Amino acid sequence: MVRNILVLGTGKSTSYLLDYLLEKSTSEKLHLTLGDLRPELIPDNIKNHQNATAIALDIFEDTARKKAVENANIVVSMLPPKLHIKVAEDCIEFKKHLVTASYVSEDIKKLDAEAKNRGLVFMNEIGLDPGIDHMSAMEVIDRIRAKGGKMLLFESFTGGLVAPESDNNLWNYKFTWNPRNVVLAGQGGAAKFIQEGTYKYIPYHKLFRRTEFLDVEGYGTFEAYANRDSLNYRKAYGLENALTLYRGTMRRVGFSKAWNIFVQLGMTDDSYTVENSEGMSYREFVNLFLPYSPTDSVELKLRHYLKIDQDDIFWGKLMELDLFNPKKTIPLKNATPAQMLQYILEDSWTLKEGEKDMIVMYHKFGYELNGKRKQIDANMVVIGEDRTHTAMAKTVGLPVAMAALNILNGKIKTPGVQIPISKEVYSPILSELKEHRIIFNEFETPYLGYNPDSVAS
Amino acid sequence: MVRNILVLGTGKSTSYLLDYLLEKSTSEKLHLTLGDLRPELIPDNIKNHQNATAIALDIFEDTARKKAVENANIVVSMLPPKLHIKVAEDCIEFKKHLVTASYVSEDIKKLDAEAKNRGLVFMNEIGLDPGIDHMSAMEVIDRIRAKGGKMLLFESFTGGLVAPESDNNLWNYKFTWNPRNVVLAGQGGAAKFIQEGTYKYIPYHKLFRRTEFLDVEGYGTFEAYANRDSLNYRKAYGLENALTLYRGTMRRVGFSKAWNIFVQLGMTDDSYTVENSEGMSYREFVNLFLPYSPTDSVELKLRHYLKIDQDDIFWGKLMELDLFNPKKTIPLKNATPAQMLQYILEDSWTLKEGEKDMIVMYHKFGYELNGKRKQIDANMVVIGEDRTHTAMAKTVGLPVAMAALNILNGKIKTPGVQIPISKEVYSPILSELKEHRIIFNEFETPYLGYNPDSVAS
Repeated sequence: MVRNILVLGTGKSTSYLLDYLLEKSTSEKLHLTLGDLRPELIPDNIKNHQNATAIALDIFEDTARKKAVENANIVVSMLPPKLHIKVAEDCIEFKKHLVTASYVSEDIKKLDAEAKNRGLVFMNEIGLDPGIDHMSAMEVIDRIRAKGGKMLLFESFTGGLVAPESDNNLWNYKFTWNPRNVVLAGQGGAAKFIQEGTYKYIPYHKLFRRTEFLDVEGYGTFEAYANRDSLNYRKAYGLENALTLYRGTMRRVGFSKAWNIFVQLGMTDDSYTVENSEGMSYREFVNLFLPYSPTDSVELKLRHYLKIDQDDIFWGKLMELDLFNPKKTIPLKNATPAQMLQYILEDSWTLKEGEKDMIVMYHKFGYELNGKRKQIDANMVVIGEDRTHTAMAKTVGLPVAMAALNILNGKIKTPGVQIPISKEVYSPILSELKEHRIIFNEFETPYLGYNPDSVAS
Repeated sequence: MVRNILVLGTGKSTSYLLDYLLEKSTSEKLHLTLGDLRPELIPDNIKNHQNATAIALDIFEDTARKKAVENANIVVSMLPPKLHIKVAEDCIEFKKHLVTASYVSEDIKKLDAEAKNRGLVFMNEIGLDPGIDHMSAMEVIDRIRAKGGKMLLFESFTGGLVAPESDNNLWNYKFTWNPRNVVLAGQGGAAKFIQEGTYKYIPYHKLFRRTEFLDVEGYGTFEAYANRDSLNYRKAYGLENALTLYRGTMRRVGFSKAWNIFVQLGMTDDSYTVENSEGMSYREFVNLFLPYSPTDSVELKLRHYLKIDQDDIFWGKLMELDLFNPKKTIPLKNATPAQMLQYILEDSWTLKEGEKDMIVMYHKFGYELNGKRKQIDANMVVIGEDRTHTAMAKTVGLPVAMAALNILNGKIKTPGVQIPISKEVYSPILSELKEHRIIFNEFETPYLGYNPDSVAS
């Protein structure tokens, strides 16, 4: 019997997801229904595949949406996070499993009891981050616990970066996912984490000056800044007693310190619109955030304001963005500073034809076993193939696709609203990801933690 | 015929307001009804005055509130701003005038047409700031315009400070009004103003480093940081074509740079609660915002983090607050950083018996007249009498009281929701304030504005 998978939202980021499912479609007897507002944008080789049907679907048209859900055996929603709830409610109504790569919202969480009653798997957060991070972390944590170890420290870092072979600007950075999220990263409240039992809070305007460094063999040194809430998964991971919990975002060394220039100036603010933004030059945009002077240059005012020395590489980074150009203009009406900055950055940081992205993930696990403190570090590097087949699309899409197939095949069967932290879920998926060269390298290191001997001196 | 004035909310800040009205009560045939949740706290000499009646009034009890309004000829609301709307609606219903010292809310603004229809004066923003600032500024602006002058620049600054004779700490500051407002000052969005036709935006974390200095003869030098929106009254003041509009808050020199330490650390954040805040020591509170170290002292970590030199007076300011004391604790449960900081500051910055406050206001008016650029500066200093009869209570309360009496006596009669910017309102009140030694000193200065010759060099 053919199983019908309804995939909602088939943008560029679903390339690997669809490829994976279509490749297995004959042997696994799958039929894919691809629902999108603009199905004409789906590549021909996908929408003309014998086991696929593309349909125009407006998620706000209840009748059409419900019909599509009713006809499916499982639904994969790659829609914007806010829209999942409509689909999830249909899945309850028509008794269908659901898979998303998004954070579990409060609305979705409320469906847990009903999903369980109907025996439905509602799998969320099964992309990259969240997704592979949960699975790879829990695999190691469960192993340490099985040996009788007690977790002391968990730190986890992820970065969506540019591949070394395409890394040709002074920022060592290009947009490889949603640029808006990059510009707004870290906003909305202080970052909160715990180190050696002490709570720590970093306000947004200091976030990019509180980085720590991480080495990945073969790829050099990276830096990481703290995510907003490192304590979110404390309970889910069973780490209530761990002394150190820290989650962060990885960048190449030096990025954060330079990014901090934008933060300090106020350019990442998304809370108000700039007067006369339309047609404003890059140079005028910078000058909005500097004291008035009838004669002093924007350049010198900026250098003085942020104390940037004559010979600081910061300056090269700003020049590379053409930030002081009086002729380049921003065409956005009623734009916020963040939107205007994004426009300027996209001008420089967009992946070009043939350029590749890179995903890096790094975990640290500190634990005590038989009275000794130990540490395991694990990291993963994935390089993209091209601008469409990105490492990001691969690491987000493959776990989603594998989860969907495993649910259909009854390998994942525990019902309810969940994230991929149980062995039933992560074990088969991590194994299969290895076949796709999504592999963690693990090594034991001395337990550094934050103990006196290693920190003080 | 006796006129009944209903005063709602009779806290400490209404001392001058009540004194003024009671003093005139016999000659002007006034009776005051003092409505408060706790009328027992009203001083005996006021509540036992022959022309006053104190009543217990819960503003949320509709029947009692409506009855009190119905019995009044005019209502003065000194309640927290959010509560004015209930009273304002009653005033519409029972055709009563209304006076408040608060900003016009959107809800109040909507009553404008109804107030006009019924011939009611709804006077708002008639305290100090807003209040005396509006009146004193419009008096000068109208005079400049009457001569044919064209406004180029308007800057206005107000500070609630400690009087020179009570100014005995390193911050040159004590709380003289609502401490919470001081801790949260400047938050909620970037400060926005216009200088020589150029819009400028300052994010919160830079606000206290973008001060400018002001000299007040006999009182030395002050500094000012920008208020959130200097453009609010552009239209009301008729300053649409002015090149420079700036409003600010005054402090003694050096305050803002030291306050910036708290901002940089994240201590003024009111958006989240600290884990285990209850019983936390001052020292532990500081350490929340600093990197973890098993050995380095909180002091050195702070010095290093914010680059405070060994010989910087900043340090004395922090020591004066006992900020590193491991024994003094904060008793607040589930407190935000801002609430915890406020607790620590109140420990040091509370006015003691016999200490006095001070209000300073400073306006700059730049204009063009007969082809020449000119400038008028005007400033006002008011020193409080004691902890109850503060300069703040005086400068807020007297204009409110005078407005109420002028409305009753038909001197202010233009109906509608308004602020005190018309001559009908400000002229008699400013004259009478002079009798109470609330006086502006005015002097002509060269037009400095931000013109090339005066700024560049």
